[in-house]
Amino acid sequence: MEGASLIAEYVGVGVFALTGAIVAARKGMDPFGFALLATVTGVGGGSVRDMLLGVPVFWVHEPVDLAVCLGVGLLTYLAGSRIPGAMTGQRPRTALLWADALGLAIFSTTGALKALSNGAHPFAAVVLGTLTASFGGIIRDILAGDVPLVLHREIYVTAAVVGAAVFVLGLGAGLPPALAAGFSILAAFTLRGFAIQRDWSLPPFRPRAE
Amino acid sequence: MEGASLIAEYVGVGVFALTGAIVAARKGMDPFGFALLATVTGVGGGSVRDMLLGVPVFWVHEPVDLAVCLGVGLLTYLAGSRIPGAMTGQRPRTALLWADALGLAIFSTTGALKALSNGAHPFAAVVLGTLTASFGGIIRDILAGDVPLVLHREIYVTAAVVGAAVFVLGLGAGLPPALAAGFSILAAFTLRGFAIQRDWSLPPFRPRAE
Amino acid sequence: MEGASLIAEYVGVGVFALTGAIVAARKGMDPFGFALLATVTGVGGGSVRDMLLGVPVFWVHEPVDLAVCLGVGLLTYLAGSRIPGAMTGQRPRTALLWADALGLAIFSTTGALKALSNGAHPFAAVVLGTLTASFGGIIRDILAGDVPLVLHREIYVTAAVVGAAVFVLGLGAGLPPALAAGFSILAAFTLRGFAIQRDWSLPPFRPRAE
Repeated sequence: MEGASLIAEYVGVGVFALTGAIVAARKGMDPFGFALLATVTGVGGGSVRDMLLGVPVFWVHEPVDLAVCLGVGLLTYLAGSRIPGAMTGQRPRTALLWADALGLAIFSTTGALKALSNGAHPFAAVVLGTLTASFGGIIRDILAGDVPLVLHREIYVTAAVVGAAVFVLGLGAGLPPALAAGFSILAAFTLRGFAIQRDWSLPPFRPRAE
Repeated sequence: MEGASLIAEYVGVGVFALTGAIVAARKGMDPFGFALLATVTGVGGGSVRDMLLGVPVFWVHEPVDLAVCLGVGLLTYLAGSRIPGAMTGQRPRTALLWADALGLAIFSTTGALKALSNGAHPFAAVVLGTLTASFGGIIRDILAGDVPLVLHREIYVTAAVVGAAVFVLGLGAGLPPALAAGFSILAAFTLRGFAIQRDWSLPPFRPRAE
Repeated sequence: MEGASLIAEYVGVGVFALTGAIVAARKGMDPFGFALLATVTGVGGGSVRDMLLGVPVFWVHEPVDLAVCLGVGLLTYLAGSRIPGAMTGQRPRTALLWADALGLAIFSTTGALKALSNGAHPFAAVVLGTLTASFGGIIRDILAGDVPLVLHREIYVTAAVVGAAVFVLGLGAGLPPALAAGFSILAAFTLRGFAIQRDWSLPPFRPRAE
């Protein structure tokens, strides 16, 4: 599990870094701006998780994740300005949504896993998984002056909660960790995917007039 | 004091969670959006306080506060969409302001108390009380794209500073903690209450032309 | 080095606090609003750095920095409302840019220094220096509803990265810490200064059409 969990974390960091770089592209930033937005988005959620847990922040002593963010940021800058059509039209928006969905699914699970490994209450582990999954994107959207994705109408937070809850419940039911993680990542990504493609949503709040 | 302090903390978390849920209602979010905004607003200030103090974050191992936030978020969703007039007109705005005022008063005091208990300098305890009281609301308002309440003209930060300072000075003067806490919560709430009702404010900054 | 490093830190905190107070002036806040914005901007970057490093946050037990922020905030309120022309026209904007540049240069270096002293990987130290330098300003700009300076086109993040990298590489090459710090602060400040005065920038991203 250890190795698979590390790889999942790198993938999650990488795809979130990509969403940060896409926002940097839309803002017309320079290469270091790409690097900063990619880094803050890629490692933001996990950093908040580790600070809340009171454990050493994952990238301070072992900076592979930073290298991933930096690489993704600079590659996006280079590729996006050279490959015709890579960053025009609807394409960047679509890429951002799907990369964000994959990061959301992975981090809701790895966030809950790290919380449990550090003695958090199962209920708190679901909340920490949800926060890990949504915080990087929140920082990215606020920095860019966009309406955070979490505030949109289609299913978003729900997918993160479902992912983290499936994992915690799966472990509780005795599933092997790798299997529980597979289920929960798949569940969260599928749910969010349908939300992106078919505008799935739960009933939004409607006040009742007097 | 221990028991009373815990109850005060739950009340503070609950009323801040309510303000988060009211914002979720205005944004037309789904039930999980209510839960997220209620949780982030309810436990945000105390989480920042605990991370700055370097102590375990209060809700990670003992998630009663999370249950309070979740309950408040879902109840607000249900009640607000069923009870006629509960969330229309000026009512939600008024409820938000007063709930925020109560949370502000409680957290300025409990924030200063926890800071002192963990060896913070009295001056730093006043600052930590102020931050605990204002940070949840800042996160809520930024997420929602509103101008943070702390930036409004009427007395706001001042009430939090007064609350925390009255508590720290009261303890220093030898008052029993429960009495000092009672005074300081009352002082902060009254001050903020007058600001809401009568637009009380300190002299705002006016530049002097050449 | 210890004493010089402390003085540099106070200067950095003070000039960032000044930029927070200038924003408070533009928003027409009251004296406690000045104090809050000055404090959050002055100690924000260093607080995030210390929380990421998992070390006690610098101002909790030794609140000289808080006193600096409070003093700068109140002095700006008083001087700005009394000295004719101090806060009208282009002057506050110019003062904010240059104070921010000085704070950026100092914090990129002291941030990297503190990270290395606490066992961070050299690469992570450069990132932590950059975050320390930019985070206070990010909080200030987001609170004020401005587009964060880090998102502007001219060189900003780049100056912080260069400062932190010069310092880490200088130490690695065997320079005495004080000399490495002097070089790196000078490099970052000069770079950012040219960006302010002559609109220096790196090539911004330009998508290539199909």
